[in-house]
Amino acid sequence: MKVNGQHYRTIWVSGNGWTVKVIDQTKLPHRFETARLENVRDAAQSIKTMVVRGAPLIGATAAYGLALAMRADASDISLDRNIDYLAATRPTAINLRWALDQMDKAVRKWPPTMREAAAYARAAEIADQDVETCRSIGVEGATLIRQHAARKAGAPVNILTHCNAGWLAAVDWGTALAPVYHAFDEGIPLHIWVDETRPRNQGASLTAFELGAHGVPHTIIADNAGGHLMQKGDVDLCIVGTDRVTANGDVANKIGTYLKALAAHDNGVPFYVALPHSTIDWTLDDGMAIPIEERSAEEVTRMTGRTESGEVVTIDIAAPGSPAANPAFDVTPARLITGLITERGICPATREGLGGLYGRKGA
Amino acid sequence: MKVNGQHYRTIWVSGNGWTVKVIDQTKLPHRFETARLENVRDAAQSIKTMVVRGAPLIGATAAYGLALAMRADASDISLDRNIDYLAATRPTAINLRWALDQMDKAVRKWPPTMREAAAYARAAEIADQDVETCRSIGVEGATLIRQHAARKAGAPVNILTHCNAGWLAAVDWGTALAPVYHAFDEGIPLHIWVDETRPRNQGASLTAFELGAHGVPHTIIADNAGGHLMQKGDVDLCIVGTDRVTANGDVANKIGTYLKALAAHDNGVPFYVALPHSTIDWTLDDGMAIPIEERSAEEVTRMTGRTESGEVVTIDIAAPGSPAANPAFDVTPARLITGLITERGICPATREGLGGLYGRKGA
Repeated sequence: MKVNGQHYRTIWVSGNGWTVKVIDQTKLPHRFETARLENVRDAAQSIKTMVVRGAPLIGATAAYGLALAMRADASDISLDRNIDYLAATRPTAINLRWALDQMDKAVRKWPPTMREAAAYARAAEIADQDVETCRSIGVEGATLIRQHAARKAGAPVNILTHCNAGWLAAVDWGTALAPVYHAFDEGIPLHIWVDETRPRNQGASLTAFELGAHGVPHTIIADNAGGHLMQKGDVDLCIVGTDRVTANGDVANKIGTYLKALAAHDNGVPFYVALPHSTIDWTLDDGMAIPIEERSAEEVTRMTGRTESGEVVTIDIAAPGSPAANPAFDVTPARLITGLITERGICPATREGLGGLYGRKGA
Repeated sequence: MKVNGQHYRTIWVSGNGWTVKVIDQTKLPHRFETARLENVRDAAQSIKTMVVRGAPLIGATAAYGLALAMRADASDISLDRNIDYLAATRPTAINLRWALDQMDKAVRKWPPTMREAAAYARAAEIADQDVETCRSIGVEGATLIRQHAARKAGAPVNILTHCNAGWLAAVDWGTALAPVYHAFDEGIPLHIWVDETRPRNQGASLTAFELGAHGVPHTIIADNAGGHLMQKGDVDLCIVGTDRVTANGDVANKIGTYLKALAAHDNGVPFYVALPHSTIDWTLDDGMAIPIEERSAEEVTRMTGRTESGEVVTIDIAAPGSPAANPAFDVTPARLITGLITERGICPATREGLGGLYGRKGA
């Protein structure tokens, strides 16, 4: 997608052929800056601190992180240790583990002298495939939006989304927002309700930033507001992304997703989850078994923003001395999900639904 | 309740016998300051800008606001105009209208020369009665907490609350938090999950402040987290306040309450609403008929807090140029509510339940 008229992916290899560059998402929406990853520690740190975030992008970054590791030391010991090291950066998004498995398969079979090249090549493939996969999710999901538009007689289709599952969460296009971009580019009237998504405000900062940059009409709302809007009939459908889908269709996604799914269910609003195949965890049958990351309390008690003079500062917003808890994800049971939007089509959030698209054990 | 060892109510008449003083809640938790209300405009402005907030306190402030109006001009025209003026400050909390009706009855029957004294006397009664009513809500609600404690074998009872319905929302004690204070003072082990309550963060700023000041164990969470905590079994019951309860038991409360009620229902967690009689709107049979205030978008896109040097600043947190919407309340249907905790006891959220406590047409 474009930023100030220039096309960007969220991750790329710089001109020297090995340094990895990413958009620093901790600086958005206040500043557009890129960060350089020069070794596996840089890559791991960028995932942990959410310089990069979003399940598909975490996977791509881990892949390039392993390439950087192979550049420094292509031994078996290094391969084992750095796969474990990168896998431990964040616990919930399964794409991380998927990408590292792909890298392991692509790299280990070569002698050490060949591993750096093999790793960069496979990481580039993972990134390119993610772009194509997300584009296909967009094509599939746009059919849903088109159906809603057909019933709205020219009025905008109101779509609620939570967190950021746009192009900033992937390599390009995004998951939940790919259908939005496709439908918008096709000329379908749209309006997006953007959940702020506390505590890290990926909605108000990243989703609003990218929708604004693309010209898509949108409105930021507090996370608390979505249920009320659904009660009033102001939401036609919800589309969110996910960090891990179990084989039975349960969905881990950014904390608060479950609350929106409950409200959608209570108000008869369709609730869709968009995902690439790499987000499916075929080894789990129950979303409650997904590990849920607990992040720093400071993400709840502090906020970063711009003062009137344009300075970016971090402030304490809570009562001094009060502790905070910060679970980063929750699990939406499959029973609350209308459908899963994948690059292979839309299916029910069931074992049979996923099996029908991917075969019994997946792609 | 006490602040730094000194007993405070949220509103009182100062030593000169007529100036009204309030705790300036827009400054909390960063600074503890009081504000002086010297005329009806000060009172109206303090309600509008949320220097005072919380349904019972809005009512008491409107009562004193009318007393200030009578001090300036005790004519019938002034009485009519200022009742309308104060009633228009905020649309959702019915206590505002209730308090003004009480004042009208107490004042209009007197000749203009007597009205100032009658108004101050009735406003003081409204404030005193609110304290006693909230104390009784506390006594009634504490029985519920005691029952939960009996099943927890010494482990703390985990109570989730949304927004601030503590003593800062009333004249003293509070509604939802009155049972918490009573149970805590009785020695029952407790822990409160404090919903941050975006966009104005009354949870993280006011509820955490007052629980901390009283020594009640608590943890601030993003509004998004409550559903996840309920899924994990970490919430024993929810208690919230309300701005208006319809005759059939539907509850308007701070935006996001409905989402927590849905999650409580989905997880078998009891969901209670605490209220004084003045919050019941006997004229409405459907919560969807309650007017919902839309507040400034800036409450969503800006945040106030303390810098490291202790300066209190306001920052922009959202993507520049992105619009925001800010509905301030939502309606929780009676079907999701386990019970209403009133000063007369606990009843089902039904017409029969309320009628049983208050008689067919209420107190």
